Amino acid sequence: MEVTIIGTGNMARGIGSRVLAGGHRLTVVGKDQGRAQGVASDLGKGDVSTAVAGAEFGGDVIVLAVYYPDAREAVEQYRDRLAGKPVVDITNPVNETYDALVVPADSSATQELSRLAPDAHFVKAFNTTFARTLSSGEVSGQQLDVLIAGDDSAAKDAVAELARDGGLNPIDAGPQSRARELEALGLLHMTLQEQLGSGFASTVKVIT
Amino acid sequence: MEVTIIGTGNMARGIGSRVLAGGHRLTVVGKDQGRAQGVASDLGKGDVSTAVAGAEFGGDVIVLAVYYPDAREAVEQYRDRLAGKPVVDITNPVNETYDALVVPADSSATQELSRLAPDAHFVKAFNTTFARTLSSGEVSGQQLDVLIAGDDSAAKDAVAELARDGGLNPIDAGPQSRARELEALGLLHMTLQEQLGSGFASTVKVIT
Repeated sequence: MEVTIIGTGNMARGIGSRVLAGGHRLTVVGKDQGRAQGVASDLGKGDVSTAVAGAEFGGDVIVLAVYYPDAREAVEQYRDRLAGKPVVDITNPVNETYDALVVPADSSATQELSRLAPDAHFVKAFNTTFARTLSSGEVSGQQLDVLIAGDDSAAKDAVAELARDGGLNPIDAGPQSRARELEALGLLHMTLQEQLGSGFASTVKVIT
Repeated sequence: MEVTIIGTGNMARGIGSRVLAGGHRLTVVGKDQGRAQGVASDLGKGDVSTAVAGAEFGGDVIVLAVYYPDAREAVEQYRDRLAGKPVVDITNPVNETYDALVVPADSSATQELSRLAPDAHFVKAFNTTFARTLSSGEVSGQQLDVLIAGDDSAAKDAVAELARDGGLNPIDAGPQSRARELEALGLLHMTLQEQLGSGFASTVKVIT
């Protein structure tokens, strides 16, 4: 697959590393070309290119690896080219003190973004996996779970395939509306970091 | 400690088994004395007694091991004797189709119950651990996490001690308001059962 990641932070690096580990092609899109090239350089081996925001980009799957306000901006900016494509929302839309979410209580970032671009096939994923853990692909020898929610089956399947090819364990968590519970779990996981002293290197797993 | 469990279902058996495994004293309170005695009998060894609902009961910790509507009823019925005590709310207040919660989106069962008995020290716990897993205390050799939320430190400490003594791993998940995210996780975990084929024998764990 051709995967486009919008964003040049740690989550772009983390998800990008799994995309390349799975043998897929990656394009990193950044507002700053130098920062995009920095991600490509950090990722090292693999089929990776960069583009500056505003330039044309394709991709079988588009990953919004940015904070929620920037994700809203990107969706508005790229609405037309996201139409009909799987678009991965990884955000945990936390407030300034990181102890609550800013989206309406009966909604989620994914549902709010979907309203901005109704023709895109939004998928919630990677919001419960921290960047550091994605770069290694596991925690304490245990494979990361990637919880995936969305209304378009083909879009969810594509994201599941990317996760699986990258050595992760995809789990279909249900419809797009389930993003609300995934984001609640994302917030919970973030707030537990201080208590656990785990430094954003933990992962949430369903043990069976 | 003296622990009182209100309820005679599988969660009463699951939590009761951990209470007794930790060497604490247990009283099972049921509307039906025969059902309470059935729980005591199933639990087998340990210091366990029964009481019929309406009779006097004490306890250093009171566990409401019933469904949400019955928990509301019990809190209203026992408001006076719950005052000042740790009261454990284990509920996932699901709707009839088990795919959403019936409490207001910006609240939680724990917060709603707390409004009915403001002098009780409500603690959310055991809503992400299924009954079957509590009876064995582990899943696939991994210790169960017990996520605990509440506003009263002493009440949380008592519940954490019960969990730890029973061979479980208590985690302080923050204030009572965090029950909202714990219930979202409880709902998510329930809805994943069909997808995972795990038959309510899985557990959610934070791997560090």
